[in-house]
Amino acid sequence: MHIAITGAAGFLGQRLVRQLVKRGELDGRAIRRLTLIDQVEPPAPDAGAIEIVSRALDITTPGGLDSVLAERPDVIHHLAAVVSSAAEADLDLGMKVNFDATRSLLEGCRRHGLAETRLVMASSVAAYGGELPEVLDDMTAVQPQNSYGTQKAMCELLINDYSRRGLVDGRVLRLPTIVIRPGRPNAAASSFASSILREPLSGEEAICPVPLDQELFVLSPSRVIEALILAAEVPGEALGAFRALMLPGITVSVAEMLDTLREVAGDEAVARVRHEPDERIRSLVASWPARFDTARADRLGFRRDADFGEIVDAYLAERS
Amino acid sequence: MHIAITGAAGFLGQRLVRQLVKRGELDGRAIRRLTLIDQVEPPAPDAGAIEIVSRALDITTPGGLDSVLAERPDVIHHLAAVVSSAAEADLDLGMKVNFDATRSLLEGCRRHGLAETRLVMASSVAAYGGELPEVLDDMTAVQPQNSYGTQKAMCELLINDYSRRGLVDGRVLRLPTIVIRPGRPNAAASSFASSILREPLSGEEAICPVPLDQELFVLSPSRVIEALILAAEVPGEALGAFRALMLPGITVSVAEMLDTLREVAGDEAVARVRHEPDERIRSLVASWPARFDTARADRLGFRRDADFGEIVDAYLAERS
Ligand SMILES: NC(=O)c1ccc[n+]([C@@H]2O[C@H](COP(=O)([O-])OP(=O)(O)OC[C@H]3O[C@@H](n4cnc5c(N)ncnc54)[C@H](O)[C@@H]3O)[C@@H](O)[C@H]2O)c1
Ligand SMILES: NC(=O)c1ccc[n+]([C@@H]2O[C@H](COP(=O)([O-])OP(=O)(O)OC[C@H]3O[C@@H](n4cnc5c(N)ncnc54)[C@H](O)[C@@H]3O)[C@@H](O)[C@H]2O)c1
Repeated sequence: MHIAITGAAGFLGQRLVRQLVKRGELDGRAIRRLTLIDQVEPPAPDAGAIEIVSRALDITTPGGLDSVLAERPDVIHHLAAVVSSAAEADLDLGMKVNFDATRSLLEGCRRHGLAETRLVMASSVAAYGGELPEVLDDMTAVQPQNSYGTQKAMCELLINDYSRRGLVDGRVLRLPTIVIRPGRPNAAASSFASSILREPLSGEEAICPVPLDQELFVLSPSRVIEALILAAEVPGEALGAFRALMLPGITVSVAEMLDTLREVAGDEAVARVRHEPDERIRSLVASWPARFDTARADRLGFRRDADFGEIVDAYLAERS
Repeated sequence: MHIAITGAAGFLGQRLVRQLVKRGELDGRAIRRLTLIDQVEPPAPDAGAIEIVSRALDITTPGGLDSVLAERPDVIHHLAAVVSSAAEADLDLGMKVNFDATRSLLEGCRRHGLAETRLVMASSVAAYGGELPEVLDDMTAVQPQNSYGTQKAMCELLINDYSRRGLVDGRVLRLPTIVIRPGRPNAAASSFASSILREPLSGEEAICPVPLDQELFVLSPSRVIEALILAAEVPGEALGAFRALMLPGITVSVAEMLDTLREVAGDEAVARVRHEPDERIRSLVASWPARFDTARADRLGFRRDADFGEIVDAYLAERS
């Protein structure tokens, strides 16, 4: 089993590599080789019997992935992307990295005859937008209100078509908002969702720019990694007529998140969260859907966290 | 008012040109100029005070439309496309004409600063597919099961994003199956839908490859042309959060179509329809959705034919 990972130096990429090394197998077959691809050479963990090849490759370079595809990987986890705010700030960059590079990857798979290769792409809840129903499901129209979501939705369509034509065996996961991300606050509008837990848990202050009753649809990093692995294991036919699906997550309000923080770290931790309403962030976050019926993904075995307490516990266990 | 039309030599293009010349105005402004674009120089009708410029241009040529865009048309009707069967037979051709050329057109509008230009594109009911609900609406997920529908759906997303960013003022109409098309039977799976009326009305035989209870969602050519004109007249904001919409049509079964044929031309006309089941066509046509709630388009003023009788009457009136 040879697995290639684009964006392997990123947040999810690095975790996926570590988890694959830890498991040592995928779909019942021993992993013999991991090819890690990113703009900068991705760090490779000590992997025992697994051969790890790290490559500094820009996926937007024409033919840049050819040497990797020529090795006929069994699975490609395609995680390289520019994030939402970058794609909104620079339409050309977003189109180039998020859409054109995915299309080139599909064309590369076609050219190299990788019909059996399982291509797993990370899409996003940000593909949804517009006037949405109270509860969404996989039959809800995708009407993105940002360029990142548009580019991801276009990739979903293309991967579905290439899979339908038997040119590759694609699968696309729409990821919920991931919490708790380790690290520092960043420019992403969703940054607060991790920050209001992470910083107080380290004795630092955090800013909450949205009202207490704002709901979010969230999934922990380790469940996302599980899902990326499962997505490479399910048979393509099991996905039915469309190769993209929304992952299960849990719906939590900011108030519930802070209640959990109180249970775990007391009133003094909650007191470290300053409430500073920010209208731009508030309206953006308010437009994100927070309730999903994910029956299709549930049936395929994708799993949500049990509750928000479990997410915080997992974060604390990992940090220590 | 300057209107540019791509695919102007085609079936809808030629009708649109004639109707625009007949009306002489769009959105309350006199039409001064029509630029007709197609692979071969599109025939131009006698147009009185309206200046018509016909251009033989391949829209896939890089920068090919620049000279047209430099003239800052107020409206662009983008109708050039390769049809469903051609896009399925040749993925590269479909991607190039149906998707890449639309993207180039959007980029051209952006480069020429045509933020106010109303870009009207024809999409298709073929964008829908998969496991669909009994009645579809604009919030039903688009999960195309053919490359043509995939390419159209990708254009919808891109036009929506370019419009949201204020780079152009786009509108996309998903067209129902158009009946009655004049001419001869062709390779399209939908060809029978026109043929089983058109041929018997001319005293000729026709073949019906699908069962009598097969339903179709149809619209007459003249209503489609009306819709293309109205789409250039409605204010962009009226479309709300997504720039594509399904046009109203009527749901008719093959049995109802033949009943209408009987009313208009008697039993002997109906007897000219030979029933020769064709499994490939049957299963393809059975996958097309036939029932839509088009409340959004209805509110905007788009209109369906009153009933199938009206469609046949209009065809006969036009033919004579
Ligand atoms: N809820 C969500 O919407 C959501 C959340 C997280 C991730 N995602 C998606 O999951 C994937 C991974 O996300 P992440 O959080 O690990 O992001 P990340 O930014 O940490 O990692 C992305 C990686 O892609 C690399 N990359 C960017 N452009 C490249 C190029 N031209 N060539 C090669 N590598 C390039 C970056 O260097 C980075 O290491 C992305 O596709 C992202 O869009 C979605
Ligand atoms: N129900 C439906 O799904 C449906 C029905 C009819 C039309 N449509 C859409 O409406 C539009 C018009 O359809 P039509 O029935 O008039 O089709 P048509 O085939 O009669 O016309 C299309 C025109 O585009 C031109 N064209 C193709 N490639 C070109 C290129 N590279 N450069 C310049 N011109 C090019 C062709 O020469 C042709 O004249 C198309 O976009 C079609 O996809 C959808």
